[in-house]
Amino acid sequence: MQNDEQVIRNLVDTWLAAAARGDVATMLNLLADDVLFMVPGKEPFGKKEFAAANQQMKDLSVKGNIEILEIKVLGDWAWMRNRLRVTMTPAQGKTVSHRGYVLTILRKNQSGAWVIYRDANLLMPEQA
Amino acid sequence: MQNDEQVIRNLVDTWLAAAARGDVATMLNLLADDVLFMVPGKEPFGKKEFAAANQQMKDLSVKGNIEILEIKVLGDWAWMRNRLRVTMTPAQGKTVSHRGYVLTILRKNQSGAWVIYRDANLLMPEQA
Repeated sequence: MQNDEQVIRNLVDTWLAAAARGDVATMLNLLADDVLFMVPGKEPFGKKEFAAANQQMKDLSVKGNIEILEIKVLGDWAWMRNRLRVTMTPAQGKTVSHRGYVLTILRKNQSGAWVIYRDANLLMPEQA
Repeated sequence: MQNDEQVIRNLVDTWLAAAARGDVATMLNLLADDVLFMVPGKEPFGKKEFAAANQQMKDLSVKGNIEILEIKVLGDWAWMRNRLRVTMTPAQGKTVSHRGYVLTILRKNQSGAWVIYRDANLLMPEQA
């Protein structure tokens, strides 16, 4: 279990680093093929929609600050609760920050790699 | 597992029925003592805050419509994903509806009863 927890922590680090450099391929690699993202006010969306949205954000400078609050490994499944703050700065324009909490379900895929399976992202725009 | 899944489905029914009649005691009974609720734009809150908020809502007529989309039982833990619509009507005033998705972590407590442990509620006000 200890080891799986560390693997999941590394996944979070890999994710943030990939997001910071706009490396969508690495991010997609950390997602289950049938992943579902949930955010307030939208219908859940999957891997294809995630990829498309991130391609559009390629020119943004993205910085994420994450604090892992809880990880519980349950065999080939795990859940994790994080506090997250994301700052996005366009090439020209104002920086926008979002903050809030995330509840994530992870699972081991057929190759034995941990991937994100369900993600409830409660982030809201930060008051200026 | 099958049986645990049915128990969790019954918990959801019990919860909605209790919410509809303003029976806060029954709802509290379905929560882990260290439950955490997460909603957009707020800090997570626990059982005491949930009880206080629901006492204030006592005079509202609350109607919930839930669709259980996924339940996964993992031993003494489970996660569940629901689509939820809640309609609240004050004694005098306009009906307000919220809709969205909920990702919930449940666990068996020491008495062997399933209780809600973490709840990420992505509901937003419905556009009129």
